[in-house]
Amino acid sequence: MTRYRMTVEYDGTGYVGWQRQQNGPSIQAALEEAVFAYSGETVRVFGAGRTDAGVHALGQVAHVDLAGAGDADTLRSAVNAHLRNQRISVVEAEEVDDGFDARFSATRRIYLYRILNRRPPPALDRGQVWHVGPPLDAEAMDRAAQRLVGHHDFTTFRASECQAKSPVKTLDLLEVRRVGDEIRVTAEARSFLHRQVRNMVGTLERVGAGRRSADDVAAALEARDRAAGGPTAPACGLCLTAVSYD
Amino acid sequence: MTRYRMTVEYDGTGYVGWQRQQNGPSIQAALEEAVFAYSGETVRVFGAGRTDAGVHALGQVAHVDLAGAGDADTLRSAVNAHLRNQRISVVEAEEVDDGFDARFSATRRIYLYRILNRRPPPALDRGQVWHVGPPLDAEAMDRAAQRLVGHHDFTTFRASECQAKSPVKTLDLLEVRRVGDEIRVTAEARSFLHRQVRNMVGTLERVGAGRRSADDVAAALEARDRAAGGPTAPACGLCLTAVSYD
Repeated sequence: MTRYRMTVEYDGTGYVGWQRQQNGPSIQAALEEAVFAYSGETVRVFGAGRTDAGVHALGQVAHVDLAGAGDADTLRSAVNAHLRNQRISVVEAEEVDDGFDARFSATRRIYLYRILNRRPPPALDRGQVWHVGPPLDAEAMDRAAQRLVGHHDFTTFRASECQAKSPVKTLDLLEVRRVGDEIRVTAEARSFLHRQVRNMVGTLERVGAGRRSADDVAAALEARDRAAGGPTAPACGLCLTAVSYD
Repeated sequence: MTRYRMTVEYDGTGYVGWQRQQNGPSIQAALEEAVFAYSGETVRVFGAGRTDAGVHALGQVAHVDLAGAGDADTLRSAVNAHLRNQRISVVEAEEVDDGFDARFSATRRIYLYRILNRRPPPALDRGQVWHVGPPLDAEAMDRAAQRLVGHHDFTTFRASECQAKSPVKTLDLLEVRRVGDEIRVTAEARSFLHRQVRNMVGTLERVGAGRRSADDVAAALEARDRAAGGPTAPACGLCLTAVSYD
């Protein structure tokens, strides 16, 4: 068996998320079917981040084992040919050793959350940004974000269906920057709880709107209670931009 | 009557182009219908650039006359509400004097053409870039582009159905830059011939691929013959980014 690492880009619109599910098309199933169409092998594709329905990726990383060891570039091209009608593209593929695990070897996940902050709705970026009409104070959002950085119990920002053993995580970076009409929130950590980024962004948006203070955010974190956090930001604004390995 | 200037963003995918036509949905008709839905007035919306089917805009400019003079911001919001199911958004609206004509008062049109130059196809930017797999030499493309800048007879880059009185235009800027996997071609002029940008980009792509030289491009321009030019680049890579007025 040869293990391959693949970097995958996708538009999450219309998919039930990364993970194979009964109720609709998933990225994982589309990749597994494309690998099967090329190789004739029924495989399992393992991803670094189980992105939710509607969440995008520029740099999802996955691994797959194949018995008929072929060239990684050929695998990439062939899988992409079979993904022609999907909004999924394998941007890189390479052979890796058996010790590599896309999910468990990952040392850092980087997410970008895009808010389009202007009155008119998006046209070209529809489905790839969260449209917030009223003006947001990005600097206030960034100041509040700094209260979340570090090693904390993130229960307040954890989805009820989260399966992680512990709610304690280390958030290495949470940065809010305005770029024209857009507010970009970058989040980096070894791993995140389920919906953690969207729950943090939904809370920071309330700060940007002047409805909560940085102290309120710090108190919400302390409360270790999902009810103390703000609403969940929509999936469409979120993109898994990169996954790092040592 | 009050004249309004509107700046319009749209994803051209699935539209027959700016101009109202019998054979499918156009941006112009969608805007006219949205204005009618708000105002009850049957209007004509005039655009600065008659973009082709599949061509996008971030900064198309249009004007419209309305008898029931309302606030420009209200017009913008109301029209956007009626465009909810379209990939069209009015990003700005303002009252202008009767002398303003979106098409004839324009002094500069700026287009961006995006080429995704990597083997794997696009996922997130599908429909907004031209995917060219083999590596292109952006610097060679830029050097060739400079041979087209200036006051010339652009017959070589003019669509046969072009209705302009003269093929002589002044091309103020044609710049080719690589940004990561993307090659961005920016074109600026008071006005362009029909398909001029796409025909120039299709020719420059041949230069990037090493199939034509900068001298070949200069000779093609001199030939004043469409057959001397390269193929027409696909519509999906093109975006009307801005229109300027004195």
